[in-house]
Amino acid sequence: MSPDQSTTPSLIALDWGTSSLRAFLMDARGDIIDQRSSPHGIQNLPEPGIPGFERAFALACSDWLARWPSLPVVAGGMVGSAQGWREAPYVTCPADTHVLASRAAAVEAQGGVRILLAPGVLYDPPDAAPDVIRGEEIQIAGALSGHPEWAKRSLVVLPGTHSKWVEVVDGRITRFFTYMTGELFAVMRKHSILGRLMPDAKPADKATAQAGFAAGIATAQKSLPGDLVHQLFSTRSLGLAHRLPAEALEDYLSGLLIGHELVSALARLKAALDSEAPLLLIGDAKLCERYIAALSAFGVKPAEPIGNTAPRGLYEFAVAAGLIKKDPSHG
Amino acid sequence: MSPDQSTTPSLIALDWGTSSLRAFLMDARGDIIDQRSSPHGIQNLPEPGIPGFERAFALACSDWLARWPSLPVVAGGMVGSAQGWREAPYVTCPADTHVLASRAAAVEAQGGVRILLAPGVLYDPPDAAPDVIRGEEIQIAGALSGHPEWAKRSLVVLPGTHSKWVEVVDGRITRFFTYMTGELFAVMRKHSILGRLMPDAKPADKATAQAGFAAGIATAQKSLPGDLVHQLFSTRSLGLAHRLPAEALEDYLSGLLIGHELVSALARLKAALDSEAPLLLIGDAKLCERYIAALSAFGVKPAEPIGNTAPRGLYEFAVAAGLIKKDPSHG
Repeated sequence: MSPDQSTTPSLIALDWGTSSLRAFLMDARGDIIDQRSSPHGIQNLPEPGIPGFERAFALACSDWLARWPSLPVVAGGMVGSAQGWREAPYVTCPADTHVLASRAAAVEAQGGVRILLAPGVLYDPPDAAPDVIRGEEIQIAGALSGHPEWAKRSLVVLPGTHSKWVEVVDGRITRFFTYMTGELFAVMRKHSILGRLMPDAKPADKATAQAGFAAGIATAQKSLPGDLVHQLFSTRSLGLAHRLPAEALEDYLSGLLIGHELVSALARLKAALDSEAPLLLIGDAKLCERYIAALSAFGVKPAEPIGNTAPRGLYEFAVAAGLIKKDPSHG
Repeated sequence: MSPDQSTTPSLIALDWGTSSLRAFLMDARGDIIDQRSSPHGIQNLPEPGIPGFERAFALACSDWLARWPSLPVVAGGMVGSAQGWREAPYVTCPADTHVLASRAAAVEAQGGVRILLAPGVLYDPPDAAPDVIRGEEIQIAGALSGHPEWAKRSLVVLPGTHSKWVEVVDGRITRFFTYMTGELFAVMRKHSILGRLMPDAKPADKATAQAGFAAGIATAQKSLPGDLVHQLFSTRSLGLAHRLPAEALEDYLSGLLIGHELVSALARLKAALDSEAPLLLIGDAKLCERYIAALSAFGVKPAEPIGNTAPRGLYEFAVAAGLIKKDPSHG
């Protein structure tokens, strides 16, 4: 997308995670005028430490700032973590963009440009370990923007390396649960004995993949507490005993792990589902498809998947922080 | 141990696994006269394929065979797997040494020496994925040897990379469950984000380690179906929120995974435990200590841990195969 020269920009928004930095030039309505993506995530900076953050930011945005020097800048994601540019400590639930804005941290980049960093959110239940999100709170703010019916009450599911299941009530994040599904799949696939029976170069045909995935979900649905450590081994034993073809084992493992995530998360969030709160899926389209298939095995139908809502969420964060005024002609 | 020259050997027994080959020279009573250990497990042979097996065997045993050329030779473990010297296909439960002997495979090494390979065991329940053991059936035969009270009914637990929970009734393996506890711990520690907060060079003091381990078990005891994928993340969030010191996180993860294993396995084998069948622990002494501590949190007290019972089990396998006569003065 090339800049729309007819529109005056009002905001620079940075979605700055572990492995990439995405920069957005936005107008007063929150529409994207221009955008860039760089590989300079916080674990891949052009040089170590603070100078690395400064340089990555300059590489992405210095021409925008040269042209519009007074633009406000906001950032969300791991850039505000303890390993980030500056730590914006977690705020506790319930949290919305106003809470995030009231507890934001700020850094000053070269040339005196101030960047407002969004905090992450801590959910601290009395009877279990605390849980944290950082970055997802911004995506959720973006998803809810302009959707008061979702803001009223919804479940927001962000599948991925660390899937997040987030309950929203009256526009605020009230509780959430992290599932290490994607990472567990990746490390078991690559580093455990389970990968050994999986052919590297022979992708499954669609029917085989679907059958493997469905079998994994069915195994998860039969699980009792503690069973996953045992059921993981079935990925191997089903192959050894020729009950599943080798090409189906990868999808079996995927179905088994996503199935366990769903068994647990749907039980934890049953009250919300029973009240017919919509289930919103945010994320990569292919992964969302996989979750839609898995959810259907549990009789749950999500709303249409939503794409990248981080820019819109950063806009809402900037509005809540008073950095820009919302254009009344929008949302 | 140097050979006891006063005793006539009756058997060569090979405990031949993935990463090592252990050779035992035994007398007619099953006592060990001499033993060797080599790193030539089936995934670390001195050369690829059959010649590698032949050479590893010759390196370990050729002097014994030069001196006592007619000694029978038996082997158990991964050497009889599909990746082994020759496959000895799984026998199905219920299985004892007689069943193993009746379905053994044989190879002929250089010089015409015949080696009898023990099969593994398949447990094939009607309502779940099949499960397999290979090598543990020999260790179990060794543990039961000379213990008719254990052979009558017991639970044999072999903790490790892949923990095995095996029910024995009337001297036969009737069913069993594999838990990938050790491997899951190792890959998550080494390859997932969970290892990042764990200090590499700062081992926990005993009290910190025990507190972390106990906290992990307590988390597992509170788990509902599917919860592990979520609870794994608490290893990180407890560190991020400073609820557990970094040095305790490794033991927390260990307690969480062993706790999940116990929650599941003790429920599956509840009938045997309720009938007061003894729980036998076989394996590495330090790991057994960890399981004893974990079991005590569930109110279960195992019998004294048992060391390496593979040589005795191979002896029983050789007796069942008719290769040697049991000396009536023993067991």
